[in-house]
Amino acid sequence: MKLIRFGAEGKEQPGILVGEKRYDVSSVVSDYNESFFENNGLEKLKAAIENGTSFPEVAGDVRLGSPVARPSKIICIGLNYVDHCHETGAPIPTEPIIFFKSTTSLCGPNDNVIIPKGSEKTDWEVELAFVVGKKASYVDEADALDYVAGYALLNDYSERAFQIEMGGQWAKGKGCDTFAPLGPVLATQDEIADVNNLSMWLTVNGKKFQNSNTSNLVFKIPFLVHYLSQFMTLLPGDIISTGTPPGVGLGIKPDPVYVKAGDVIELGIEGLGSSKQVAVAYSK
Amino acid sequence: MKLIRFGAEGKEQPGILVGEKRYDVSSVVSDYNESFFENNGLEKLKAAIENGTSFPEVAGDVRLGSPVARPSKIICIGLNYVDHCHETGAPIPTEPIIFFKSTTSLCGPNDNVIIPKGSEKTDWEVELAFVVGKKASYVDEADALDYVAGYALLNDYSERAFQIEMGGQWAKGKGCDTFAPLGPVLATQDEIADVNNLSMWLTVNGKKFQNSNTSNLVFKIPFLVHYLSQFMTLLPGDIISTGTPPGVGLGIKPDPVYVKAGDVIELGIEGLGSSKQVAVAYSK
Repeated sequence: MKLIRFGAEGKEQPGILVGEKRYDVSSVVSDYNESFFENNGLEKLKAAIENGTSFPEVAGDVRLGSPVARPSKIICIGLNYVDHCHETGAPIPTEPIIFFKSTTSLCGPNDNVIIPKGSEKTDWEVELAFVVGKKASYVDEADALDYVAGYALLNDYSERAFQIEMGGQWAKGKGCDTFAPLGPVLATQDEIADVNNLSMWLTVNGKKFQNSNTSNLVFKIPFLVHYLSQFMTLLPGDIISTGTPPGVGLGIKPDPVYVKAGDVIELGIEGLGSSKQVAVAYSK
Repeated sequence: MKLIRFGAEGKEQPGILVGEKRYDVSSVVSDYNESFFENNGLEKLKAAIENGTSFPEVAGDVRLGSPVARPSKIICIGLNYVDHCHETGAPIPTEPIIFFKSTTSLCGPNDNVIIPKGSEKTDWEVELAFVVGKKASYVDEADALDYVAGYALLNDYSERAFQIEMGGQWAKGKGCDTFAPLGPVLATQDEIADVNNLSMWLTVNGKKFQNSNTSNLVFKIPFLVHYLSQFMTLLPGDIISTGTPPGVGLGIKPDPVYVKAGDVIELGIEGLGSSKQVAVAYSK
C-alpha cells in the first residue's frame, strides 16, 4: 500500500494511492498516527481493501500533507553515505551520528519551504526516511524490520548558519517550520523490492545537485532500528531519516550554494515518488 | 493554580493541588495537553474554581504523572548558569545552546529512573522548566511572558558516555526513557512571585550535590522564548528546560560520581515542590 494524507493543512484525511489515483479511506481509518500503527491499522486497512471496500476517488490536484501525522519524534542520522564521506574527506563513522528535528518542521511534500527570517544558508538534503510501526525498545537487529511500517521521501532542510555557527548543537538549524517535507507517500515494505538499492536525486531549478543510491548507506535500516532503540523507545509513527548523499549546497566548491526565494527544489527516490518545494521568504 | 496529573502511567487524570490537598478536575478538563492550553483551558479552569465547582479529593498517595501531557517537544538549554560557567571555567555563552530531549523521556516526578542497559554514567541535573501556553513564532522579548503557561521542576537526566563519547550530537544521552521526570506541579505564573529568585537543590542519598538559585540564570525566560521562537514554532504544552547549576556528577573532583541502582535522588525548587526518584537497573 501507498498511504497519503490529503486536504488543508492541519485537516488532512487519510487516503491511498493506487497507480495514479488517490482514494479517500477515511471511512475505515481516522488518521495515520501513533494509534493507527499501534493498533494494527495497516493490517485492517489492507483487509478493507482486499474485501473490496469502495473508496471515493479524490481529485488529483488536492494538496498532500505529510503521509503520517505529527509523531512523537523525528530522528535523523548524520554522515551516513559512503560517497558523502569520500566527498568530504571525513572518515566513515564507526557508529551513527543522531540528532532530532523538531516535529513542528513536518509538512506536506509539495508545500512551500519557508526561508526563516535572517537566513542566508538554507540548504537541502534528499533522504530516505522510514516510519516506525510498533513500539521499539532494545530491538535485535535480526527482528528490526518487524518494527518498520514503511518508507518515505524526506527533504531534511538545514539552515547551516543556525546549525553550525551559532554555538552548540545542531537543533537551531534543523527544526525550522517547513524544514521536513515528507512524502508524497508512505510505502509499506512490500511495495519496495530492495530498499538498499534505490536511486535518489535532487535538483534546484532543474539542475541536478544530488544523485546517489541507497546502496551507499553506511548504516542500514535494521541496524539503525536496533541502535536507536538502545537509547530511547521508538513509538509507532515515529519518523527516522537515514541521512543524505553528497551534493548539498554547503559542499559545493568553490562557493556553497543556498536556497533563495523563488527557487524550485525537486527530489525523488525510486519507488517512493517525488516532491517539489518552492522557496519563499518568511513574511508575517 | 498548581496543576497535577494523577493515576497510572498513560492513564493520568488532570487535577489541582490546593495546599496539601489534591483534587480531581476531570469533570471540567480532559487533559493538560496542547488542546487545553491552546483553547484557554487555564482561564476556563480558573473560572470553574472561582465559580465554586465542587471537585472530588484524590488520595494523597496516588501516583503523580508529569503535570503536562506529552508535548510536541522538550527543548533544553545548555550551560545557562553563571556559577556553573565559573565552576567549569567555561566562558559564559554569548547565545543559548539548545538541544532536544526525546518526548518519550517524560515521566512522573516520583517515578523510578531507569538506568539504561550498559550505562555507567547516568547523571542528574536539577532544572527550572517552563511550559508554553500559546503558539509562539518570532515573539518579541517584551511580549514573551504572554506565551508562558507556568513553571515546573525537571530533572534533566543525562547519560554522559552516550551523550559525549559516542560520536556527534548529545541526543543519545538525553532522551532515554524516564530521563525527564517533571513536576510535581505546573505552577501558573501568578503562583511565583519572582521566578528569577528561586532556590534550587538536589541530593543523592541525602547528600547535597546541587545548591543554587535561578538568579544565576544567564539567559532568562523572556529572552529564551524570544530566541527559540526564531528557530521554530513553539506549541502550547511544549516544555522548555532552562539549564542546570553546578554540582552534576560529571563535574565532581577528583572523580565523577554517577547514579547506581538503589540511589535515591531528591530535588526541589522553591515554590515548585520537590520530586524523588529511585534508580533501578533496566530489566526486561
